[in-house]
Amino acid sequence: MMQIETHVDRFVRNCWYVAGWADEISADNVLERTLLGESIVFYRAADGRIVALENRCCHRGAPLHAGRREGDSLRCPYHGMLFNAEGQCTEIPGQEMIPQRACVRSYQVTERDELIWIWMGEPAKADPGRIIRFEWHTDPAWRKKRSYLHYHAPYTLIVDNLLDFSHLTYVHSTTIGTPSTASTRAQVEPIEGGLKITRRYYNDRIQANRSSIATFQGPADRWQIYEWFAPSFVRLYTGSAPAGTGAHEGRLVPEAMQYRHCSVQTPETSTSTHYWFTHAANFKTETSEAIDVVFDGVSRAFKEDKDIIEVQQKALQSGRPFQPMNIAHDQALVLARRLIQRLLDEEAQPDGQKPAPAAFELAQ
Amino acid sequence: MMQIETHVDRFVRNCWYVAGWADEISADNVLERTLLGESIVFYRAADGRIVALENRCCHRGAPLHAGRREGDSLRCPYHGMLFNAEGQCTEIPGQEMIPQRACVRSYQVTERDELIWIWMGEPAKADPGRIIRFEWHTDPAWRKKRSYLHYHAPYTLIVDNLLDFSHLTYVHSTTIGTPSTASTRAQVEPIEGGLKITRRYYNDRIQANRSSIATFQGPADRWQIYEWFAPSFVRLYTGSAPAGTGAHEGRLVPEAMQYRHCSVQTPETSTSTHYWFTHAANFKTETSEAIDVVFDGVSRAFKEDKDIIEVQQKALQSGRPFQPMNIAHDQALVLARRLIQRLLDEEAQPDGQKPAPAAFELAQ
Amino acid sequence: MMQIETHVDRFVRNCWYVAGWADEISADNVLERTLLGESIVFYRAADGRIVALENRCCHRGAPLHAGRREGDSLRCPYHGMLFNAEGQCTEIPGQEMIPQRACVRSYQVTERDELIWIWMGEPAKADPGRIIRFEWHTDPAWRKKRSYLHYHAPYTLIVDNLLDFSHLTYVHSTTIGTPSTASTRAQVEPIEGGLKITRRYYNDRIQANRSSIATFQGPADRWQIYEWFAPSFVRLYTGSAPAGTGAHEGRLVPEAMQYRHCSVQTPETSTSTHYWFTHAANFKTETSEAIDVVFDGVSRAFKEDKDIIEVQQKALQSGRPFQPMNIAHDQALVLARRLIQRLLDEEAQPDGQKPAPAAFELAQ
Repeated sequence: MMQIETHVDRFVRNCWYVAGWADEISADNVLERTLLGESIVFYRAADGRIVALENRCCHRGAPLHAGRREGDSLRCPYHGMLFNAEGQCTEIPGQEMIPQRACVRSYQVTERDELIWIWMGEPAKADPGRIIRFEWHTDPAWRKKRSYLHYHAPYTLIVDNLLDFSHLTYVHSTTIGTPSTASTRAQVEPIEGGLKITRRYYNDRIQANRSSIATFQGPADRWQIYEWFAPSFVRLYTGSAPAGTGAHEGRLVPEAMQYRHCSVQTPETSTSTHYWFTHAANFKTETSEAIDVVFDGVSRAFKEDKDIIEVQQKALQSGRPFQPMNIAHDQALVLARRLIQRLLDEEAQPDGQKPAPAAFELAQ
Repeated sequence: MMQIETHVDRFVRNCWYVAGWADEISADNVLERTLLGESIVFYRAADGRIVALENRCCHRGAPLHAGRREGDSLRCPYHGMLFNAEGQCTEIPGQEMIPQRACVRSYQVTERDELIWIWMGEPAKADPGRIIRFEWHTDPAWRKKRSYLHYHAPYTLIVDNLLDFSHLTYVHSTTIGTPSTASTRAQVEPIEGGLKITRRYYNDRIQANRSSIATFQGPADRWQIYEWFAPSFVRLYTGSAPAGTGAHEGRLVPEAMQYRHCSVQTPETSTSTHYWFTHAANFKTETSEAIDVVFDGVSRAFKEDKDIIEVQQKALQSGRPFQPMNIAHDQALVLARRLIQRLLDEEAQPDGQKPAPAAFELAQ
Repeated sequence: MMQIETHVDRFVRNCWYVAGWADEISADNVLERTLLGESIVFYRAADGRIVALENRCCHRGAPLHAGRREGDSLRCPYHGMLFNAEGQCTEIPGQEMIPQRACVRSYQVTERDELIWIWMGEPAKADPGRIIRFEWHTDPAWRKKRSYLHYHAPYTLIVDNLLDFSHLTYVHSTTIGTPSTASTRAQVEPIEGGLKITRRYYNDRIQANRSSIATFQGPADRWQIYEWFAPSFVRLYTGSAPAGTGAHEGRLVPEAMQYRHCSVQTPETSTSTHYWFTHAANFKTETSEAIDVVFDGVSRAFKEDKDIIEVQQKALQSGRPFQPMNIAHDQALVLARRLIQRLLDEEAQPDGQKPAPAAFELAQ
C-alpha cells in the first residue's frame, strides 16, 4: 500500500544528482551544501574542475568549508590538517607519519548543461553517460531564466506534485492553470528510467497571463509533454499553436510557441529539499520580454506549489498517520513511487542478487 | 500513584468539548482549529448550522481550510476534490466514479450558550443532553465578559490549578486572592460526572480591587462554589454579602453581589490547551463599569495562572522525572485525576466489558 | 574505541563543580542556574553562607526561584509551601501536619577563590579539600580579569579543545596563536586526578598583540604548563622571558612575564555548557593596561574557540555518526577522556566493588 512519508530516510544513491548551478563555484570561493543528509564542500581546483569533499575533517569532525584554501588543498580550520583535491590528508601538524586512513570522502563531480552533477553512490557505478541532459541550456535558439527554491518538505511530495498536473487548475488558477487541465486525462507510458506523460488540449485557450507576448490570438491547440526520470528529474516540453493547424499531428506553424523546462530536486535532508528549475522559450528570443512574462508566471506558480506542499507536509505531520486514497489522476505518481521503491530495493540487495526487473505495468 | 504528565497523549473522547465562541463562525468564513491533536475545519452551511470536518483531504492530505467554499461544500485547494457538509466527496476532477470511501470525517456540532460544542468520540454515543450548560450566558439578568488563553501546557496542569484554590493567596495576591483562601479548607463532594467544591468565608474582606464597585462596604461573608465536570469544565458561583446577613444560610440581602463563571479547556495537542472563560455579575448591570472592574481582575489573575503553569510545565520537563507529593488542599484534584483516569479506562474497554463503577470515595 | 558524543547524558557527579562567581549572589537576590541538567536555586542566608536548593517544589514542581524570600526561607510561588535553608518544608498552607518527606534536595555549597562550588554527588563523599584551587584569585600580586561563555555544545568538546593546543596555530592565528604551537609536541604526564601538559618554546616570538605591553622585546623562551583535572578544570601557567636567560631551567629574570589562567566548565544540559574563565598577570599590575591588552586577546580567542566548537557540534550532529581519527597531538585528550570514563564507571559501581585502579599509561 502506498504511503505518504513526511520524513524520508532512505535515498536513491546510485544516481547523479544536481548540486547547484555551475557558476556558483568560481575560481576561489568555497561552497557548502548539504545533499542526501551529508554536508559537502565544493571548490574549483586550479585546472577548473570542481572538487567535492566530505565536509567533516576525519580528525575531529570540524567543517572543512570554514577552513582555508591552499592551492588545490583545503586546510581544516581547527587543528590544521591539510586535504588535497582527492580528499587525502597530506599534512598533520606536529606529526610526520600520515596514515592512509587520514582522508575524507571525495565525490565524483561533473559539469553538464550549466549544472553541477554529483555522484554519491557506489563509486564504481558512476557513469556520466547516465546524467539526465538539458541540452537546450546551452543552445542559442532558446532563451531561458532560472531560479531555486528551498523546500521544507521531503522530495517525494514534490515528485507527487509534478506528476499530477490536475492541480494546475486549482493551485495555479490565476497563474499557469486553465480549467481544462483537471478534466483532461493524461497519457502515461513507461520510458527508460522513468515515465512519459502527455496531455493534449484541442481548441483551448492560452493562459491569461501570456496573451501579451503571444505570437497569435484565438483558440489554441496546446500540449504538455513530460519526461520524468527517477528519482526526481523532469524534462518538460510544452507549447501551443493556432487551433487546427496540425500541432498534435506534428506540424508546427511558425506562430507555434514552444517552451522547455527543467525541474530537478535533490534531497537536502529527510525533511527538506533543494529545487532548481529553468524555463526556456524558442520564440521572440531577441529580447527578454517574452521569457520574462512567461517566467514570472512560472515562478509565481512554483511559489504556489511550495506553499501548498509545505502546508500539506504540516497537515501530514500532525494528527494520526495519514493513509492516502488514490484517484485516476494519480496513475503517473503511483508508477513513479513504485519505480523509486524498486531502485531503493535494488540498492539494498547485495550485488549479484538483483530482483528480477518488475514488469512495469501501467494498470494500478 | 499519581503522575504529573508534561505530555498528555490520551484524551477523553466521549465528551462534548468546546471548539470556540459561536460568533467566531460567520456566514462565509472558514475556521481551522486543532482539537485533541486533530486539525478540524469549521464553517456554516446556508441553513446556519455549523459544519465540522476533518481538515485533511482523503486524497493527499492537503488542508481543506485553505480551499474554497462552494455553497455548503468545500473544495480541496490542491487537486480540487469537493466535499459536502457531511464530509462525502461529490466531485473528483477528471474522474466520473466517486468511491464511497472518498470522504473525510464529519463531526457532530451543536451551539449552546454561545459556545460551539463538538463531539469527537464514538458517534453513536453523542447525546447533546450531556453538554455542560452555562445558561446564564443568554440570561439578561447577568452581564458578562469573555476571553481566551492559549496555553503551552497540557490541560491536566490547568485542571490541577482550577481544583485547588489555595493558590489564590500566592499567585493572585494582588488581584483576586485573599490571605484567607489558603487557610480555608474546602468541602469536596462528588456529583454526577464531577465534583462540587465549596468554600465559605465568614466575616472576611472583599478583594481589594473590587471595593470601588461594591454595593456595600465592611466585612463580608463570601463563598466560592464550584462544579467541576470531567475532564475540563468549571461552573463557578461566587459572591459576597454583608457579614452576618445570612448568606451562608441561603438568605441573600439586596446588596449581595453574585458572580458566575465559566472556565472550559479543550486539549489542542498533547502539550498545549485552549482555554475559554467568561465572568458574569448580576448587580449594577445597567452599565459595564462593575463587570469591567471585576473582569479586569479576573483576566489579570488568569494571566498569572498561565504564567505559573507554563513555568511549572518547563520545570517538570527539565531534569529528572518528577513525582508529586500531595497535600491536604489536593483532595479535589486527586479525585478529579482519578475520575479522568476512570473515563480513559472505560474508553479503552471494548463495549460490554465496562469496569464496575468505582465507589467514588472522598478519602485519599 | 573513542567516541565523540554530541549529546552527553551521564555526568561525573562526585565532584565539586563551579556554579558561578561568588559575587553573583548578594544578600537579597535569588539566582536560578541549571547544572548537570537540574535546575537549582541559590541565595544567601542571613549569616552570609550560600544556600542551594533543588528548584522544584516537592508538591507540584513549581520553580522556587520565582517565589518569595522570607528570612532564610523560600516560599513556593504556586501554593505557598515554605522551605528553609536545609530544604525542609516548614509550612503547608491549610495543613498542620508537615510530613518528613516534604522537602527539596539541598546541596552542599562552598565559596573558594571567588567562585561558588557545589557538590551534586553522594552527600557523604563531599570533601571541600578536593576543590580545585585557584589561589591567585585573591593574591594581590596578580591582577586579573574574568568572563563567562555559554556554549551550545557538550562539555566534552570543550575538554578536547583545551587539551590540544595545536589548534592555537589555526583557530587563533590572529589572537593568541603562533606558528610554533602546532609543530611543538607537548609533554604529557599523569598527576593526581588529571594530567600535566607542558610545552616549551625556545627562541620563539611573543604573540603579536602583546608586544605593546611586553617588558622586553626580541626573541623569547616561552612556556605553557597546564594542569587539567577531570572532568573539566584547567589551571594554566604560561609566560615568556628573554631567550636564553634560563627560564626553562627555572631561572626567571625580572623581565619575565608570567600569566595564570583558570578555565572551568560545568555541564548545563547534555548539549550545553557553562564556561567560566579568568586570566591574571603578575607584571605591570599597578594599572589595568597590561591585563586589559592580554585579556582582550584571550577573550577574542575564547570566542574563536566557541565558534569552532559550536560548528563542530553542528557538523557532528548532522549526517552519519562520526568516528574520530586520533593524531599525535591527541595524546592528552585521549587520556583525559579515558580518565573521565573511569570516573563514570566508578560511580556506576555499587560501593565496595570499585574497579581496580587502571594503570594510567601514557601510551595510547
